[in-house]
Amino acid sequence: MIKAGIIGSTGYAGQQLVWLLSKHTDVKIVFLCSHSYDGSYYNNIYKNYTGYSKDICINMQEAENKFSDINILFIALPHGKSFNIVKKALDKGVKVIDLGADFRIKNKETYKKWYGIEHTSSNLLSKSIYGLPEINREKIKEASLIANPGCYPTASILALTPLLKNNLIHTDSIIIDAKSGATGAGRSAKIDNIFTECNESIKAYSVACHRHTPEIEQELSNISNTDIKLTFTPHLVPMNRGILSICYATLNKKGITEKDIYDMYRKFYMGEQFVKVVDFMPETRWVRGSNMCHIGLRVDLRTNRIIVGSAIDNLMKGAASQAVQNMNLMFGLEESKCIDFPSMAL
Amino acid sequence: MIKAGIIGSTGYAGQQLVWLLSKHTDVKIVFLCSHSYDGSYYNNIYKNYTGYSKDICINMQEAENKFSDINILFIALPHGKSFNIVKKALDKGVKVIDLGADFRIKNKETYKKWYGIEHTSSNLLSKSIYGLPEINREKIKEASLIANPGCYPTASILALTPLLKNNLIHTDSIIIDAKSGATGAGRSAKIDNIFTECNESIKAYSVACHRHTPEIEQELSNISNTDIKLTFTPHLVPMNRGILSICYATLNKKGITEKDIYDMYRKFYMGEQFVKVVDFMPETRWVRGSNMCHIGLRVDLRTNRIIVGSAIDNLMKGAASQAVQNMNLMFGLEESKCIDFPSMAL
Amino acid sequence: MIKAGIIGSTGYAGQQLVWLLSKHTDVKIVFLCSHSYDGSYYNNIYKNYTGYSKDICINMQEAENKFSDINILFIALPHGKSFNIVKKALDKGVKVIDLGADFRIKNKETYKKWYGIEHTSSNLLSKSIYGLPEINREKIKEASLIANPGCYPTASILALTPLLKNNLIHTDSIIIDAKSGATGAGRSAKIDNIFTECNESIKAYSVACHRHTPEIEQELSNISNTDIKLTFTPHLVPMNRGILSICYATLNKKGITEKDIYDMYRKFYMGEQFVKVVDFMPETRWVRGSNMCHIGLRVDLRTNRIIVGSAIDNLMKGAASQAVQNMNLMFGLEESKCIDFPSMAL
Amino acid sequence: MIKAGIIGSTGYAGQQLVWLLSKHTDVKIVFLCSHSYDGSYYNNIYKNYTGYSKDICINMQEAENKFSDINILFIALPHGKSFNIVKKALDKGVKVIDLGADFRIKNKETYKKWYGIEHTSSNLLSKSIYGLPEINREKIKEASLIANPGCYPTASILALTPLLKNNLIHTDSIIIDAKSGATGAGRSAKIDNIFTECNESIKAYSVACHRHTPEIEQELSNISNTDIKLTFTPHLVPMNRGILSICYATLNKKGITEKDIYDMYRKFYMGEQFVKVVDFMPETRWVRGSNMCHIGLRVDLRTNRIIVGSAIDNLMKGAASQAVQNMNLMFGLEESKCIDFPSMAL
Repeated sequence: MIKAGIIGSTGYAGQQLVWLLSKHTDVKIVFLCSHSYDGSYYNNIYKNYTGYSKDICINMQEAENKFSDINILFIALPHGKSFNIVKKALDKGVKVIDLGADFRIKNKETYKKWYGIEHTSSNLLSKSIYGLPEINREKIKEASLIANPGCYPTASILALTPLLKNNLIHTDSIIIDAKSGATGAGRSAKIDNIFTECNESIKAYSVACHRHTPEIEQELSNISNTDIKLTFTPHLVPMNRGILSICYATLNKKGITEKDIYDMYRKFYMGEQFVKVVDFMPETRWVRGSNMCHIGLRVDLRTNRIIVGSAIDNLMKGAASQAVQNMNLMFGLEESKCIDFPSMAL
Repeated sequence: MIKAGIIGSTGYAGQQLVWLLSKHTDVKIVFLCSHSYDGSYYNNIYKNYTGYSKDICINMQEAENKFSDINILFIALPHGKSFNIVKKALDKGVKVIDLGADFRIKNKETYKKWYGIEHTSSNLLSKSIYGLPEINREKIKEASLIANPGCYPTASILALTPLLKNNLIHTDSIIIDAKSGATGAGRSAKIDNIFTECNESIKAYSVACHRHTPEIEQELSNISNTDIKLTFTPHLVPMNRGILSICYATLNKKGITEKDIYDMYRKFYMGEQFVKVVDFMPETRWVRGSNMCHIGLRVDLRTNRIIVGSAIDNLMKGAASQAVQNMNLMFGLEESKCIDFPSMAL
Repeated sequence: MIKAGIIGSTGYAGQQLVWLLSKHTDVKIVFLCSHSYDGSYYNNIYKNYTGYSKDICINMQEAENKFSDINILFIALPHGKSFNIVKKALDKGVKVIDLGADFRIKNKETYKKWYGIEHTSSNLLSKSIYGLPEINREKIKEASLIANPGCYPTASILALTPLLKNNLIHTDSIIIDAKSGATGAGRSAKIDNIFTECNESIKAYSVACHRHTPEIEQELSNISNTDIKLTFTPHLVPMNRGILSICYATLNKKGITEKDIYDMYRKFYMGEQFVKVVDFMPETRWVRGSNMCHIGLRVDLRTNRIIVGSAIDNLMKGAASQAVQNMNLMFGLEESKCIDFPSMAL
Repeated sequence: MIKAGIIGSTGYAGQQLVWLLSKHTDVKIVFLCSHSYDGSYYNNIYKNYTGYSKDICINMQEAENKFSDINILFIALPHGKSFNIVKKALDKGVKVIDLGADFRIKNKETYKKWYGIEHTSSNLLSKSIYGLPEINREKIKEASLIANPGCYPTASILALTPLLKNNLIHTDSIIIDAKSGATGAGRSAKIDNIFTECNESIKAYSVACHRHTPEIEQELSNISNTDIKLTFTPHLVPMNRGILSICYATLNKKGITEKDIYDMYRKFYMGEQFVKVVDFMPETRWVRGSNMCHIGLRVDLRTNRIIVGSAIDNLMKGAASQAVQNMNLMFGLEESKCIDFPSMAL
């Protein structure tokens, strides 16, 4: 039995993780840690657990005292909060999956530039593996520290990787226009987040400056062996869950057909349970509440561009269920264990 | 292995049933029948099943030809469509769970009055068991024909039964003001159902004439051994799933406290896994996507009324997961098998 | 030209009032006061005013210094905040319309009981007129202090008044089950208000203890010359605007028909521009963004109950446009000036 | 007094037009024509008009019989339906504003290619003026036939015109990623349009083949005196109203700053009442229910791209209020008459 601790358990990604791990037959949750709700019953915060949980949230100090009782630590905190926690956990021999951003960017200068703070555990960066199983499966199996990918990067990297691996696009032509549900903004009491400020509206935000940009660039650069710079625009959509990432790029040759590219995508993701190449353009509802990623594409012959759409659930494949997928790999379990179900659709 | 057929598999309740049964380790789905989508791949209609289903919908005639291959038939059709199907299935020794309304009302005159058509299989009415496990568990275990309760009745009967069993209210004082998500209207292409006609609005409908009224009355009358007539008002709420039933009644004595009644409710539902008496007034989000029913209550001392609120997911405890709960009972399986998970909350 | 000041101009009701008064050809806005946004451009908070407003919000002290420059003061503050402001304004000869709760409850003990604080300007209570024009039109014309009705009371009182005036119901049988859009919760950064906590859910709140209860009771008691106690249950609906109030009561005689009651309602509201008796059960969308109130009703012959539904826009007839209607009356303008338009429907 | 007829008055754009024209003090509506609701009271279809309209919808033949009684005809029909109507109206000396697509595309081959049908009134194409006042104001004043722009084209052309006029971008680099509320799909009873199929999801549709593509290209080509081909991707967002158009292009020189471009945009739209260059990235809520267009932009220095965002209300500036703006120009009225109000914001 894998013994797990969760830090940041009362955020939206944390809650989703609790939901999944509670059903995982190889996992026992040892503690739920919450800065905001120290001492509270978990089911008083998330009342869906009425009858399912009697856990009481503990604080960080108490959590650290329990590191010797666990095999794996999940951290779902804002950036800048994981540096020391990860170090302490690794020192105790605990494997770590960090759902936050702190161990995703390999270059500490890049981190500082985009996140605005110094990385104080940069010596650990070389240990961390970017936890996108469809790309890094073998490394994940051996890892002790996983940087669980951001939600936008997960959707975008999965959408673009086959094009780059097959050298089909101009690498300086990538534009990603992505749309997220409101859980992406976190469980934070700000005016901008309240119902009536988000409902019945759509907006782009952090245009040309969103922190997921360097993360996507880093991974796509690694994949393509080029230095990729791209334009990334996230949007807030009035819905709870889901990310739709629409990726534009210019094909680097003429005459390649949509069918050719579809064949290539299908081959690339053949055998992947959680990435499906679909003949329609994806809709987030079909993957909501699941670990699935749907990818569809169109070639615009008139402009010689390809448009690839990718849909995930930001709290699942974009956070918690991908973390479980990583954990399954790290502990030699069946990769799909406890996350092998489709969306409920509605 | 239980072999199951589903008629009406492409409606919203049908889809939810497919979702659940696909994960049920004791069940094998033998066929999916759909009048509207005969010959179509199921995952072309519900694209969430991409990678999960290769089933092709069959028509009614084909379904009937397979009755000898199944142990249980689920029917999720509009009222008036099940009469013959149920008869044919029972004749073949197939157990039936009808998610529609045709076998809920015991009195064929009452059926005719509210549903506007003649009941042509009324001889089967005496065989049918009203499938509300928390009330009729033992009978369900022995049943061959289950009338799976309506969504509003499930929420309302569970809310009111303890009061009636304990003879605490004036039985002529019951008013039920209930609210439903838009899946309750079914997957039907009508102007009234389109997004922009439902969104950003709330309305009551079928006021004083909704067909769930006699169903609630029948069951509450049985429970209380009185002839109950009540007022029932359903509403359409701009959300996908969920029913909130707020039930009003006048207490028949003074001096009884909210705590007394809470204690009595807790005792009544003690041991029930899927009905939780909660100290807060229920919100549909906490039960969405689960088989749970949350019940909370308040006593209005100023008016000597009790207000009981009950929340379920209309497609789950109000339809599909309750059908699975019934099936589990009918086949001697663990009652909670495959439906034992909380809401995802978001 | 009427010179107006608005205190609490950056709340949702305040904003709606600014919107209306900006178009009112007899009104000049002299100041916008905002505690939270003192010194900010109004159109930096509400960006819809880009190109329409160059106003800068002032603070309370600055506002008070300008009382001698205005004829009318609108106050849209939380309860307990208006006591002194009203006094000071009246002392300067400024007419006041208070959109908050402080001058609605005539009995200071009742106020204290429900609002939990001492009323420190109770000597002014006798001056204040409850600003529901369809009930109190003549008094409003003469008033210097208007207590603008709450949103739920507006809908509920308009729904029930004809029944009480015609002595058709048992006055102890009234139950009001009302539903509000999320603007009703105000522009306040709380976890409970954030998008993902409200969306895709419905809940009742403040059951048996909502502060609009004594306000409704006071007015209905006055109208009926009886001491009315009723049960009032508000709900939060995932939409921006709108209140639907469904009112239940038992008819005090048999044999009265739905048509009889409709005729009586139509007669009662004949000539009223903003209250329409409709043959359908109201939907909030048809009145959204307007000063209209739609009232429809059904008689439940089986239980001898009447169900009256009433729909308004909580920010309009439930707050800002009703305030303008009152102002028009107080200053001898055409009552419908600047609020005479239907809902945009979508 | 201008006498107006409206064909297609019960669609969403038609209804919005009725709403506006009903308040226009220089306009008298002579008839409302509706194929679907011939003979129905308009306020039975759109119940917001209770107390505001006693009009009865007439059919096309009746409408044509009244052409001699009107000065202006508004047509809001699906493409392919206006050919003959426009001809007949012009023959009678009636000015026409066609909100549909039939007279927007100047090249009849292009029309046929994208709309799939033969243009049977192509001789009138040379008379028609593309009704985007900020671009074609003078021509509109003289026009007898206005092709009222599509919703996506309105937002996109206004966003991109200053860049093209100032020759700042590579004209082959334009990508438009646009998002629309569900009213954009029209009032049509299809499964895809029903609430539960649209809610809580986002999708791209008509990728690389949407019919607004050639319309945008035609106008931008005219503006830039080049042959522009671009990529256009529309999305469906779960909200009623609004279009957000995010336009990407590569700057054709280095060193130009965001401020430079902002200055240029502000200069370009100086004096325009309905197009506002804003320092924030637009949100549809700030323009909802108004004729406003908000344009904001960012320069992505890392990729030398510019990202221009433009927000309108698809039923207003994207349809009905723009039609009124055009009418005002055609009849020598103040351009802003009856459409000069900001969004209600909520």
